[in-house]
Amino acid sequence: MTLELRVVIRQLGLLMLVLSALILAVAAFACLDHFVGGRGETVEPVSMLLAGAIGALVGAVMFFLGRKGAGLIGQREALLLVALAWLVGAALSAMPFFIWSHLSSGPDIPTHDLDSFTNCYFEAMSGLTTTGATILQSITAVPRSLLLWRAVTHWIGGLGIVVLFVAVLPMLGLGSRRVYWLEAPGVSHEGVRPRIQDTARVLWLIYVGLTIAETVTLRLCGMTWFDATCHTFATLATGGFSTLDASIAGFDSTAVHIVIIVFMVLAGINFGLYHQLLRRRWRSVTADTELRAYLTIMVVATAIVTISIMRHETVSAAQDEAASFPTALRHAAFQVVAVQTTTGFCSADFDQWGFVAKATLLTLMFVGGCAGSTGGGLKVVRILICAKVLLAELEHYYRPKVVRSVRVGKTTVDPELRMITLVYLIGIVVLCAVGTAVLMMLEAHQGIDITTAATASVATLNNIGPGLARVGATQNYAWFTAPSKIVMCILMVLGRLEVFTILVLFTPRFWKSE
Amino acid sequence: MTLELRVVIRQLGLLMLVLSALILAVAAFACLDHFVGGRGETVEPVSMLLAGAIGALVGAVMFFLGRKGAGLIGQREALLLVALAWLVGAALSAMPFFIWSHLSSGPDIPTHDLDSFTNCYFEAMSGLTTTGATILQSITAVPRSLLLWRAVTHWIGGLGIVVLFVAVLPMLGLGSRRVYWLEAPGVSHEGVRPRIQDTARVLWLIYVGLTIAETVTLRLCGMTWFDATCHTFATLATGGFSTLDASIAGFDSTAVHIVIIVFMVLAGINFGLYHQLLRRRWRSVTADTELRAYLTIMVVATAIVTISIMRHETVSAAQDEAASFPTALRHAAFQVVAVQTTTGFCSADFDQWGFVAKATLLTLMFVGGCAGSTGGGLKVVRILICAKVLLAELEHYYRPKVVRSVRVGKTTVDPELRMITLVYLIGIVVLCAVGTAVLMMLEAHQGIDITTAATASVATLNNIGPGLARVGATQNYAWFTAPSKIVMCILMVLGRLEVFTILVLFTPRFWKSE
Repeated sequence: MTLELRVVIRQLGLLMLVLSALILAVAAFACLDHFVGGRGETVEPVSMLLAGAIGALVGAVMFFLGRKGAGLIGQREALLLVALAWLVGAALSAMPFFIWSHLSSGPDIPTHDLDSFTNCYFEAMSGLTTTGATILQSITAVPRSLLLWRAVTHWIGGLGIVVLFVAVLPMLGLGSRRVYWLEAPGVSHEGVRPRIQDTARVLWLIYVGLTIAETVTLRLCGMTWFDATCHTFATLATGGFSTLDASIAGFDSTAVHIVIIVFMVLAGINFGLYHQLLRRRWRSVTADTELRAYLTIMVVATAIVTISIMRHETVSAAQDEAASFPTALRHAAFQVVAVQTTTGFCSADFDQWGFVAKATLLTLMFVGGCAGSTGGGLKVVRILICAKVLLAELEHYYRPKVVRSVRVGKTTVDPELRMITLVYLIGIVVLCAVGTAVLMMLEAHQGIDITTAATASVATLNNIGPGLARVGATQNYAWFTAPSKIVMCILMVLGRLEVFTILVLFTPRFWKSE
Repeated sequence: MTLELRVVIRQLGLLMLVLSALILAVAAFACLDHFVGGRGETVEPVSMLLAGAIGALVGAVMFFLGRKGAGLIGQREALLLVALAWLVGAALSAMPFFIWSHLSSGPDIPTHDLDSFTNCYFEAMSGLTTTGATILQSITAVPRSLLLWRAVTHWIGGLGIVVLFVAVLPMLGLGSRRVYWLEAPGVSHEGVRPRIQDTARVLWLIYVGLTIAETVTLRLCGMTWFDATCHTFATLATGGFSTLDASIAGFDSTAVHIVIIVFMVLAGINFGLYHQLLRRRWRSVTADTELRAYLTIMVVATAIVTISIMRHETVSAAQDEAASFPTALRHAAFQVVAVQTTTGFCSADFDQWGFVAKATLLTLMFVGGCAGSTGGGLKVVRILICAKVLLAELEHYYRPKVVRSVRVGKTTVDPELRMITLVYLIGIVVLCAVGTAVLMMLEAHQGIDITTAATASVATLNNIGPGLARVGATQNYAWFTAPSKIVMCILMVLGRLEVFTILVLFTPRFWKSE
């Protein structure tokens, strides 16, 4: 079976048309904002329109070129398409930034972060992979329409990943299927392929529903429609791009913090469970072991961080007040949820917190959200399986004849799934180490410290956004050299697509026709 | 079956008697050295005799108390015994240091590193686990007989670990058996239990043979008999205690360096292979996949480090010469072998080297020697298995129906072995991370940096000795607080006994009689 490249080209063309439509929608907002609202410069709608037009043209050509492709997408085509979708999608998504930067530059205008294409690509990739790492040194220096576009990249990226991992890959019978449907009783483990489109449509409706709910709630809490929309997009995608330099710390409202905490928690839950809820299968939701573990980890971590903060004098350098219990609890809960769901919003400069708090957050960076959510990281279910396998092997060590099955909830984890889970964990650790080493080498001339290099590697691979030290809550990624930014783009894609999806493309057997 | 504690006590008594005999042997050396050679103080032989007498007394009592124990040792008793052997052994081995320090102290004598029992215990544990991390700020301030005793703890610890992992545990049918006999064709995987004592006797003879060979060779290279003996003990055990503050860098002799490199390489090889050699089974040695991988890794790493050193100006701060190729090659080979075999000798201050060299050495710290050698670390065979499993799973990801067996050499690695290998790797990484976090918390008041904490954790868990930064080649572990030293003692034992052996003792089921 030869690799059917035309199908891939056609689908990529379709993707570009969809992205272009979104760019044009933002262009419409820019037009309204400028000509009706009287905000910003004419260059903004012009850049957006130009970017949308280019994308639509290229997309249409690709769609046309691939018209003779077979209708069915095989496993290999799907994998290739998924990898290329993020790489090509980021290139198109970078266009509005790049065009705007070049059209608005002039002799009397200082150079801007978005002047280099690498920076624009990094920002777009960070958006689409819902990482939320930014190269912008001043977010407020960027016009509103571009900030909206940044948030849209999050939103579409988050939707894409949920549809991909809950609807598309499982139906194609790809390896990680069973992880995601571990406890969804509606789907038997073998056979029975509900149609991809049906599931995708339900997921899309859930996602839009949550979007509307959060936007309206944030508006009621006093945010502008613009801020509410942008932050909703960033929350539900567990992305983390804000419209303020200070991130959520810039909104001094307890209500806003709590609403965002709630929706971050919701975004980190397996979207398959919402599907179950709609079918009124309450039991399968309340009995979900991963969901219970996810919430338990959050509660325990929040308690640890709260105590750690209260033992220190201040929550952040900016807020020079002794942390009262409610304040400490709120910031602890916010930061724990923001880091574990890999959103990466900041309600305070946690880089100033004590060692215990920082170590807890660093650990949570690896845990991540539930499988089938928009969250990144290793995923709670993998941690669960790994912990149970560790215990089982420990007993097996001195009782080789006793064989116990490893269970998560009521589901037995077969040896194959155990193996792939362990391999995935090791793979992530190795990639983090390699990423750290490469960043240290590339940035040695800037005297990068190991905390910065390691947390930059962890924060991009796990799609979190901010790290510690020089990539901490109040810092950004602008100062890295271009090669490092490309390395981090690769880490973001690897993390977002759960490594295997990308790595298989580099095995010779993948390309061999059989 | 209840746990037969009397057998354990009896065997521990026997162990103490053996250790006491060794202490008394060193005491005899101290007597000769003082009364015939005219070196040192009278307090030295007195301390050694006292320590030996106490140990012999306690050992005899324990041996007597346990006399009614059943003759056969079960799996659980063996595991408990192994763990206690190192803990109790270190306590006795610490006695000569502690007694000497207290007998020789006086109002006009400055306080010494060995005044605290924690320090003495750390030094003894570091010796017995063949780690080689020292709390001595000045080694030459310690009398010769104590330095000899330090070296003897290495030697007996190395012998103990080889006998344990090649002869005792496999015969008891304990979990890791198959890793170690993976490619030894003389032993079938199931059944056939050659008697432990036979194998142990052969290993002991090989170990003594190598000891004599290295001691004589080093003597011929110009070392004194004393230095030659001490360094031989430290080399063959892959320990790393030296008699000089500057470690091997203190011997400015290319011949000495080369001899030690050769014997470090030999000490890192599976002692089961020497057994095969004695039986004239050449093929099983030359075809050993782990041995080949072990040597290949060393050659590649040496090449990388050589190039990295040559690009820098100096090999070490002390030797302020431009590194010529032979010098760079020698130091690179020495340090690569010293770190990979987890000996931890230093021929130069590698903490001054470039990032690539340091990152390579840090990676080698995890690799370690071959299974069944005196070396620590993860062991080459585990890395091999893990790499092959990763590749197999990658293919399996998009071809779930293709099942290929994972092979190391001609042996198929069954799923059980694959699983335990992966679990072990993850366990080590988690322990390193936990160790780092605990050290950072305990030493926060001293402003410990993450490089120091992480490499101290890695260097003790993998039984290497020196790390980087404040535990680097020219530094020591004296400055840690007592709690940190205890944590590192635990890490050393965990690493030496390959984690499971210790951790099973903490599972409730281990203690339950069935």
